[in-house]
Amino acid sequence: MVQVPEYAIIVAGGSGTRMQHSLPKQFIEVAGKPILMHTIEQFYRYNPAVRLIVVLPQEQITTWRELCRKYTFKLFHMTVAGGATRFGSVKNGLGAVMGDGLVAVHDGVRPFVEVETIRAAYEAAAKFGSAVVAVSPKDSIRELTGEGSRAVPRANYKLVQTPQCFKASILRSAYEQPEQEHFTDDASVVESTGEKIKLVEGSYRNIKITTPEDLVLAEAFAAQDKM
Amino acid sequence: MVQVPEYAIIVAGGSGTRMQHSLPKQFIEVAGKPILMHTIEQFYRYNPAVRLIVVLPQEQITTWRELCRKYTFKLFHMTVAGGATRFGSVKNGLGAVMGDGLVAVHDGVRPFVEVETIRAAYEAAAKFGSAVVAVSPKDSIRELTGEGSRAVPRANYKLVQTPQCFKASILRSAYEQPEQEHFTDDASVVESTGEKIKLVEGSYRNIKITTPEDLVLAEAFAAQDKM
Repeated sequence: MVQVPEYAIIVAGGSGTRMQHSLPKQFIEVAGKPILMHTIEQFYRYNPAVRLIVVLPQEQITTWRELCRKYTFKLFHMTVAGGATRFGSVKNGLGAVMGDGLVAVHDGVRPFVEVETIRAAYEAAAKFGSAVVAVSPKDSIRELTGEGSRAVPRANYKLVQTPQCFKASILRSAYEQPEQEHFTDDASVVESTGEKIKLVEGSYRNIKITTPEDLVLAEAFAAQDKM
Repeated sequence: MVQVPEYAIIVAGGSGTRMQHSLPKQFIEVAGKPILMHTIEQFYRYNPAVRLIVVLPQEQITTWRELCRKYTFKLFHMTVAGGATRFGSVKNGLGAVMGDGLVAVHDGVRPFVEVETIRAAYEAAAKFGSAVVAVSPKDSIRELTGEGSRAVPRANYKLVQTPQCFKASILRSAYEQPEQEHFTDDASVVESTGEKIKLVEGSYRNIKITTPEDLVLAEAFAAQDKM
């Protein structure tokens, strides 16, 4: 049986702006090492043969390599310079994906993604072509309208996480189109080519570390896990 | 100058189901005392003259009074037995609101609500009649459709928190209508009577403690605050 190659594009384009931190958020230490290292480890835990592509802003690549030396971080990965937007960054990462296979796109600052979630996303992508991890919102949702806002039924909505997983050919042809403003994730890019997106149930632990509150939670999760 | 009476209905109807905990979630200890006590304290920090109504399931009221003794919790509040649903519980709490004034409805398991948020909600309700605290979603959003799901622009949505604050007369007449399935919060109840809802910017710290992950975050916040 031939194993389909599994790629992971880890997008780590963040600055420290919303984090009120001097370091780019993917480099902030949680449980003794940069967040991005934890994220990479989770993909290797899922599949030791994963082909891992880390997309970083050009000016951070040297710092990242220094951090890898400093922390003696040995997990193999390619680094690729990001673009001006998330779309550009994923597209650059995709340039390193050769031939067929499955490609997961994952946020560099989601280090608590579970191995089971990663597996479910790849499996669903193998079967359906496109699969995206999502959870149900815990809060009521209001839609902004011209004059104000209105309640909408929250059971009709899902909050999207990553990984977002695709057959390489589908993701590649989706990223050949020009960027549009409503592309906030890979699912929206792929969907605009007419592909259907399969939703995979995520976990509330799979947080995107974006604000100082998230960093507090990250340390607490890490302490629980003895990461 | 006559001060408008300010009421707060703290709805604490939860069981421990989603929390995987033997205690109802509002009674779980965070930073050395039950979550519900922290929540009540925040309203007293905002206004020492607040008229505070705690709605609890009938079978929990004795336990709550025992907890208040055990923790020598002295902040004055009325307890009211809840209904079968959140709608019924708020309606029962509203029965204790006499005459005019402003009424905040707040989740008992949102202990990290900031005094400034509470103030902003009462002020907006005084001015506009109805005001609801909400934050922008951090994640992409998908809407479930008959056949699957589709991306929707997240900038058009808000995640609703509490407090939700109203002129007493508005809230009272809204709760005279029969309950409907799409009533997930007070804003949706009030809105269905034709009232406009003013949105007030909330905080990502104002979490609703619902799942075990939230409890981890709560302890971490509390440790930061030395609550």
